[in-house]
Amino acid sequence: MLPDTPENLKNGRPRSLDDRDGRWGELHLRVPYRLRATRDVFEINAPELISVIETPSDRPAQVLTIMDQGLHEAQPDLLRRVESYLRAHEDRVTPAGSALFLPGGEAAKNDPALIDEVLSAIHERGICRHSYVLAIGGGAVLDAAGFAAATAHRGVRLIRLPSTTLAQGDAGVGVKNGVNRFGKKNFLGTFAVPWAVINDFNLLRTLSGRDWRCGFSEAVKVALVKDAGFFRLIESSIGAINDRDLAVAGPIIQRSAELHLKHILSGGDPFELTTARPLDFGHWAAHKLEQMTSFDLRHGEAVAIGLALDVVYAERTGLLAAPDRERILACLLALGFDLHHPALHETETLLEGLDEFREHLGGRLTIALINGIGEQSDVHEIDPSVVREAIDDLSAGGLKTGRRGGDQRGGG
Amino acid sequence: MLPDTPENLKNGRPRSLDDRDGRWGELHLRVPYRLRATRDVFEINAPELISVIETPSDRPAQVLTIMDQGLHEAQPDLLRRVESYLRAHEDRVTPAGSALFLPGGEAAKNDPALIDEVLSAIHERGICRHSYVLAIGGGAVLDAAGFAAATAHRGVRLIRLPSTTLAQGDAGVGVKNGVNRFGKKNFLGTFAVPWAVINDFNLLRTLSGRDWRCGFSEAVKVALVKDAGFFRLIESSIGAINDRDLAVAGPIIQRSAELHLKHILSGGDPFELTTARPLDFGHWAAHKLEQMTSFDLRHGEAVAIGLALDVVYAERTGLLAAPDRERILACLLALGFDLHHPALHETETLLEGLDEFREHLGGRLTIALINGIGEQSDVHEIDPSVVREAIDDLSAGGLKTGRRGGDQRGGG
Repeated sequence: MLPDTPENLKNGRPRSLDDRDGRWGELHLRVPYRLRATRDVFEINAPELISVIETPSDRPAQVLTIMDQGLHEAQPDLLRRVESYLRAHEDRVTPAGSALFLPGGEAAKNDPALIDEVLSAIHERGICRHSYVLAIGGGAVLDAAGFAAATAHRGVRLIRLPSTTLAQGDAGVGVKNGVNRFGKKNFLGTFAVPWAVINDFNLLRTLSGRDWRCGFSEAVKVALVKDAGFFRLIESSIGAINDRDLAVAGPIIQRSAELHLKHILSGGDPFELTTARPLDFGHWAAHKLEQMTSFDLRHGEAVAIGLALDVVYAERTGLLAAPDRERILACLLALGFDLHHPALHETETLLEGLDEFREHLGGRLTIALINGIGEQSDVHEIDPSVVREAIDDLSAGGLKTGRRGGDQRGGG
Repeated sequence: MLPDTPENLKNGRPRSLDDRDGRWGELHLRVPYRLRATRDVFEINAPELISVIETPSDRPAQVLTIMDQGLHEAQPDLLRRVESYLRAHEDRVTPAGSALFLPGGEAAKNDPALIDEVLSAIHERGICRHSYVLAIGGGAVLDAAGFAAATAHRGVRLIRLPSTTLAQGDAGVGVKNGVNRFGKKNFLGTFAVPWAVINDFNLLRTLSGRDWRCGFSEAVKVALVKDAGFFRLIESSIGAINDRDLAVAGPIIQRSAELHLKHILSGGDPFELTTARPLDFGHWAAHKLEQMTSFDLRHGEAVAIGLALDVVYAERTGLLAAPDRERILACLLALGFDLHHPALHETETLLEGLDEFREHLGGRLTIALINGIGEQSDVHEIDPSVVREAIDDLSAGGLKTGRRGGDQRGGG
């Protein structure tokens, strides 16, 4: 059973025969995470972008720009400003041809041909592992561009400029990318550390009311599982958030980003290889609701419903006190979220989301709940009859009062 | 230029405005590397495979077997033995359906439909991130199966059972996978730590003489850049290697694997994000020769030629002493390698390999040479006229004497 002699060849590394786990060594990876916040990253003298770029000794660094089509339409001047910025720093960077455009929203993640387009550009324009892909857009565009960037040459350097509240506060910050296959969200993807993430709050100015709102359900989520003080800050800032005051809302988004990132970097298992979990409170139902509504529900909207469902569930199973439940639901409603959707009543289908959630994350079913504001508490079983009761609660009248929001604005 | 207030929100994490590099934190990943050597891994009581599998608390772990078609044809009994082994341990593992087959050799890496087949199986059979893909085969099959395993659900657990000397000694050990696109070798791939690598020397018994030989050029390579003592061991074992004595050859393959892996794990940059390089002595020409011959030249054969070319180049540029050059060429010849190929005379095309090599690895051109046996010495420029002279040396008579080998055996 034992090998003939290789043990003998491990000079200086004697290995016990009891080492049944077969560990020969350990891979040890340390990678800096660059995260910055700013306003107007493409102002010619703004240092945030140019200062993260490492220029090769013999020529400027190549930069391939990939832009969200929706953002381009909402901010038609942006592309010219990107180009001017790169030109102003031509001693250090050079554009690798003209920008590529990807459709915004889930469409970017559903069409394999779009990934091929990005890969072709990387191939044809000679982008190497020390060149940069500058991806500007919402979470879906960052995810799709990020998957292409992470797999071409086994990874070219990706700089993410998230352009939505959701992407700046959560989806664009972290170490994942992903595209959809077989009707499964993020079936394909990798863990890969982006070279840098720069949150430019000015990019948020042209979001629709729906998209503006979406990032704040993730902010509420991370506050609920990590930081009661942050939840209070959100509660007290609802007016300014709904008024789209960037001086208040920007730092809230940034705090959400930082809490998400801190969870990833400080948990000891950033690539979720063993038991580490993402911050996925409210997400089992959210993922399924997005799928069931063919992504008519935006992720942030689905998360608000998923949070509400799990908060009511937690209260009904005795984990959470009723006043906390009320505060949370009131906060989500005041931020303008609907906490109910007809798809909730296709409850059998919804509950299939539990198993898909388990399969995607692997291992035993683990659902994050809370037993207080700022206090996560995991469970490994979900009682379908209580889920049904919670759905009835959400569809009952009272919860829909208090809604307000900012749907009046246009733009992508 | 500075953000309005997010700095203020970084409670307890004051950040200097001089921190121009934008580092917010650091990702820190530690992953065990399980590497084992054995004979007859599927003997029912053999512990090497079953002991690396972590069984979930509530059910056996799912195992999807992917097998090299060529290996299956050469060892028709193997599949039944895999199935018996899994059945004998059914308390801990359960097969996720029947085995998938991938064509052996570069074909596995050239056809995107094969990757899709593996992804479909992972999707349809409900393989999760805590399930296992057991890939058994040559380096190309491990690379293709590994790319699918690394991107499905952002990575399911991959156990590699390399079945060639090349894969056991080099290609199957490490943290990369890759498939070919746009005519570029390994254009697509990821860095991903396999769950375990188990070298079963018995799998090598049915290799053809060509394939048997191929792993030893990589063993010579790693000896030349890392370990003069290992080079002497290879020199003194040539007879036993050519006689395919597994008791001698197996440990040499394993030592090659260990030196490759040690280079990756101890270099501080296992994912080659900054300046770390793989052990790529002799590889700029080898990669190009494979491509130029449409992979008629096997990787190990191309590496032998690439080594010879760079050894002669190093001697001609004064880096390497002539007696060392002679020893190295004599060793490669005695192992049965041809050190010349007509494609070398398409020298313009061959030299394009330098730029493709630079692009794939990124950054400045860096070519590993040696200035002694066991002593690597990098250069950043290659003189095409000296390459031409080195090719003339290789095509001149004397170097082809002494050739012997073991082409008499059949099998895949």
